[in-house]
Amino acid sequence: MSLAASTPSTITSDAEAFLRDFRSLSVIGETPGHGVDRQAATAADAQARTWFTSLAAQYGFTTETDQVGNVFALIEWTPGAPYVLVGSHLDSQPTAGKYDGAYGVAAALHAGRRLAATNCETPKYNLAIVDWFNEEGCRFAPSMMGSSVYTGKLPANEALAVSDKHGTTVAEALEAIGHLGTGTGPIAAAYAEIHIEQGRSLEDSGTTIGLVHSCWAAAKYTATVHGEQAHTGSTVIADRKDALLGASMLVVLLREIADSFPDAVLHTSVGQLDVYPNSPVVVPSKVDVVMDLRSADQEVLAAATAMLHQGISRIEQQANVSIDVQQSHAWGVLPYQPAGVELARACADALQLTNAPVYTLAGHDSINMKDIVPTVMLFVPSVDGISHNEREYTNDADVCAGVDLLTEVVARLCRGELDGAK
Amino acid sequence: MSLAASTPSTITSDAEAFLRDFRSLSVIGETPGHGVDRQAATAADAQARTWFTSLAAQYGFTTETDQVGNVFALIEWTPGAPYVLVGSHLDSQPTAGKYDGAYGVAAALHAGRRLAATNCETPKYNLAIVDWFNEEGCRFAPSMMGSSVYTGKLPANEALAVSDKHGTTVAEALEAIGHLGTGTGPIAAAYAEIHIEQGRSLEDSGTTIGLVHSCWAAAKYTATVHGEQAHTGSTVIADRKDALLGASMLVVLLREIADSFPDAVLHTSVGQLDVYPNSPVVVPSKVDVVMDLRSADQEVLAAATAMLHQGISRIEQQANVSIDVQQSHAWGVLPYQPAGVELARACADALQLTNAPVYTLAGHDSINMKDIVPTVMLFVPSVDGISHNEREYTNDADVCAGVDLLTEVVARLCRGELDGAK
Repeated sequence: MSLAASTPSTITSDAEAFLRDFRSLSVIGETPGHGVDRQAATAADAQARTWFTSLAAQYGFTTETDQVGNVFALIEWTPGAPYVLVGSHLDSQPTAGKYDGAYGVAAALHAGRRLAATNCETPKYNLAIVDWFNEEGCRFAPSMMGSSVYTGKLPANEALAVSDKHGTTVAEALEAIGHLGTGTGPIAAAYAEIHIEQGRSLEDSGTTIGLVHSCWAAAKYTATVHGEQAHTGSTVIADRKDALLGASMLVVLLREIADSFPDAVLHTSVGQLDVYPNSPVVVPSKVDVVMDLRSADQEVLAAATAMLHQGISRIEQQANVSIDVQQSHAWGVLPYQPAGVELARACADALQLTNAPVYTLAGHDSINMKDIVPTVMLFVPSVDGISHNEREYTNDADVCAGVDLLTEVVARLCRGELDGAK
Repeated sequence: MSLAASTPSTITSDAEAFLRDFRSLSVIGETPGHGVDRQAATAADAQARTWFTSLAAQYGFTTETDQVGNVFALIEWTPGAPYVLVGSHLDSQPTAGKYDGAYGVAAALHAGRRLAATNCETPKYNLAIVDWFNEEGCRFAPSMMGSSVYTGKLPANEALAVSDKHGTTVAEALEAIGHLGTGTGPIAAAYAEIHIEQGRSLEDSGTTIGLVHSCWAAAKYTATVHGEQAHTGSTVIADRKDALLGASMLVVLLREIADSFPDAVLHTSVGQLDVYPNSPVVVPSKVDVVMDLRSADQEVLAAATAMLHQGISRIEQQANVSIDVQQSHAWGVLPYQPAGVELARACADALQLTNAPVYTLAGHDSINMKDIVPTVMLFVPSVDGISHNEREYTNDADVCAGVDLLTEVVARLCRGELDGAK
């Protein structure tokens, strides 16, 4: 049960099989711009789930769906033993790329296929490929919903009650696509995930594999800017309480804060902004924004947060509005288990794949999983670092190298080689 | 047929009748904040139309609906003669006040009721009270849709094909509420409209009646800011093309332009802003904004427009985006016929109502009508100038004084006293 023993011809055929299956996944929910739109629990997400369960059955796995729509493809070598989980997510942002999440599920499925086909000693742990529900969080907040429920960080009933902007709940949406299951899924012994980097560091350094050692710290805030409705034509400027002016000043402020730190150590953004009543001739009375600040340096993040709060007070004065800010989410720099990074490095070296330790700047389900079991997180390069964009791309050689590596890592996890890692 | 002949007790009972009917209108589409939400061709708009046609029938009018949903309540004194039209609109902005538009229709209905009940010589013209379709333009753009079609400025088929943001067309929405009529309505000989001021000038000067002599000039633009989708967490700031940053800079720029002129001679605003894909973790790729600039001085407006275009070029550089700007609507300072202002002044003086010439800063259906027939536009005060807001308010005395004045003005228009005014 070691990929190092595979012959070159097997590797080629494994790569072809992987690329064939990945192409068949990539056309599900395809957009005119050659990306995908598979938001959580939509018809396109349901189709991708069918792609997953159909292929998993073909490759010898049984499948089950848990109480919050996580889909597991299981193979039981050792009755009653816990499972090594390996996977990612099939849901996407709107007009997203084909690789984000989908690559990780497809790679996990093929690692599982290759291990299931290997005749060898019975491993210590069984194997489960997982498609986590709603990692992206664009239709239903928060993101990483499925793995948050699985790891006990979010109560299932709370997740199921979340509504999208049309008032459809997670429970209703999952029910509608036939993916509201029961139970809490298999017991995990370890976890592995592979993903595109969504940044440039691997490409810039000519490295094939990123060994993820930590996640950047993040602070996320929701803010509601309160103004007052007025007529855009007739209300004198001095009388206006323009919530959109206040919100716009907030968007500009966040970029100014990022620019005030040297060496790109801070990322800030507003991705979501909703205006009420959003009519051409009405001064807006209410604007909701979602703010996102990230850094590898928690002191930078603390300083940026202080600048944000000072700036908000100034904006309240200047725009004649009031601003309610709430922290919706925050985490410090989150390390993965060093033994997992070492295991991944040893596997990559054995396969002669260039590798380097990297941060993840984005969130992944592995960030939840590492808190309950030893976890390995791997990256392959992203061309130009493009992410959450239809033009997201990773070349086939890197994609296939990643599947090879993941297969080897999972084989070792199944043998219990990361047991006890902290 | 002169209100000046009414006895005080009649006036009191006219006022009571008006206030009773106006209250019954104000609860249609009422919001929790004691305003109304009666966007064009919604269920609430349909209910308000039923309020209008029911009362009109009770007061001796016949009603008809034209090809674009304008409702006319007709009384024919002189067979075959054209009609004096008097009215406003029953549709509203979301969470709007009870007075905007609705007061003008209710006042027109009561002016008509009082004239219809008067035994006197047969007037030269017949009378039609009108509820113009979709004056507000928030559900379906452009605003003043019904009067634009009536006056030949907008082809009916173009108006009927306009879609709201859910893809419902004007034709479908009117059909759904049973208000897609036929024909082009009665032939107009003159037009009168009364409205709340939506500004403070009457209240500040302690004046009951505004004699509207001109409309401020306006320049309206739609802009699309083009950026590129990226991951908010992982994409380095230098690589971002953040469309929301560009749009926010545009909102701030517009306010800066207004502030750069002394004495509040320029009003600027962005009331509508839509973000795509509007997900918390995606840098927006596209933002649409609607910009509105108004002034009584066309040179100020031209200077402001030049500043806007310069600012847009700077923003394109600073935010690394491209911005497409299109003028959607523009007009110069638009005078009403001076003879109409004089007629209104004479009526107000006869009724001993304090009065002053005023601009309208907002658009009204009378702006369309004055281009085809002699037109009188009247204002009553707005407390604190509050408009497009649930707290919009005009006190009962001013409201009833306005109905008295409108009755007298319409009586004179029916006698042909404004014939030939240019």
